[in-house]
Amino acid sequence: MDIALRLEVEHLLARYAHCIDDDRLEEWPEFFTERGRYRITTAENFERNLPLPIVYADSRAMLRDRVSALRHANIYEAQRYRHVVSATLVEQVDAGVVRAVSNFTVVRTMHTGESMLFASGRYLDRIRLAGDGGRPQFEERVVVLDSRQIDTLLAIPL
Amino acid sequence: MDIALRLEVEHLLARYAHCIDDDRLEEWPEFFTERGRYRITTAENFERNLPLPIVYADSRAMLRDRVSALRHANIYEAQRYRHVVSATLVEQVDAGVVRAVSNFTVVRTMHTGESMLFASGRYLDRIRLAGDGGRPQFEERVVVLDSRQIDTLLAIPL
Amino acid sequence: MDIALRLEVEHLLARYAHCIDDDRLEEWPEFFTERGRYRITTAENFERNLPLPIVYADSRAMLRDRVSALRHANIYEAQRYRHVVSATLVEQVDAGVVRAVSNFTVVRTMHTGESMLFASGRYLDRIRLAGDGGRPQFEERVVVLDSRQIDTLLAIPL
Repeated sequence: MDIALRLEVEHLLARYAHCIDDDRLEEWPEFFTERGRYRITTAENFERNLPLPIVYADSRAMLRDRVSALRHANIYEAQRYRHVVSATLVEQVDAGVVRAVSNFTVVRTMHTGESMLFASGRYLDRIRLAGDGGRPQFEERVVVLDSRQIDTLLAIPL
Repeated sequence: MDIALRLEVEHLLARYAHCIDDDRLEEWPEFFTERGRYRITTAENFERNLPLPIVYADSRAMLRDRVSALRHANIYEAQRYRHVVSATLVEQVDAGVVRAVSNFTVVRTMHTGESMLFASGRYLDRIRLAGDGGRPQFEERVVVLDSRQIDTLLAIPL
Repeated sequence: MDIALRLEVEHLLARYAHCIDDDRLEEWPEFFTERGRYRITTAENFERNLPLPIVYADSRAMLRDRVSALRHANIYEAQRYRHVVSATLVEQVDAGVVRAVSNFTVVRTMHTGESMLFASGRYLDRIRLAGDGGRPQFEERVVVLDSRQIDTLLAIPL
């Protein structure tokens, strides 16, 4: 186990969580490489290899478009997320790339003050260690939700 | 504080969580030494030192039997767990053994898609650092649940 | 990123969580410097810079008074907390002081056995690395709750 490597990955995952939870969505695409892929799917579809992602993007430009759409819709104002990330396992693929798997839960708080456990699942990540500016970036982040009961308001990135 | 030691323990706890959450229960007994003890109890009984564990095993063979029984009953198909482990503290007992305490929460998702906070509590672990194959293994794992309201379906290991 | 520094901060946060969850409240003030500040507020008030904390103390003596009051009221017996702390980011301020931000969730279990997600939010900490006895201590801990719906029984420190 490479200690520095694991802590670098956990640091990336922590910064990502705070970026979303702090509503700094404009910075979110910068966590991905230029051709980075982002996908939200359910455990059921993931295991059956069904090509029905809830959200899909395969470039930073698509992620930026998504943020613009969210800002236009103003849905983001109505809710706030709180990410907990745990049990991260890191595996080196080659000198410049690692894979990581983590568990997560997200609590959602509405503007009314009502809080609920909104989502749980796994992050399956492929990370380029020295991306733009020498910082690690996601080549791929697959969000596998435990439940197929997805709130139709699902809008903020997970 | 020994950094490598703490990260090795956290790595063990993370692998254990994914083993159960991925439904790889047949691998679960391998996290224990041959005479490893596993116990689920409630905070109330634990503090009063009452010998009424909800689940008890004192060997890897008993853990394997438990997995067989679970597979036979097919209960495991109806539900899925998601573990979050946090606030791990590690204390060295001797050259080869450490104690660790962690907080955990478990979200359960039913096959219907319904999710709920299923359990919270503490892991109290005694870990042999160089177990079989040189990997760390539990000599003892005590799962202390915060609540005494236990779902009677409690079947999957925590 | 300084690995030892980050792990030392995470260790402090873990010890703090267990201190409260184990109901060792008399030790809680010792996590703060003599003039340490502790504040619980809501995200809404925090962002608007409103001076309406739910709980406020600006010395260890005030924290001790608070614990005495809690013990006298016996409210603490009726409930138990379980903290999960995640996504800690550490930033060095100067040689002896760091700032840290973390996400947290707290599950509350009543003496009836009923469990619920009680609170979620952020810890904003200012930590003196070599406080009393050479151990790190909080110069300031601000607990920013995601929700403004606060249980009026809010009594145990978060």
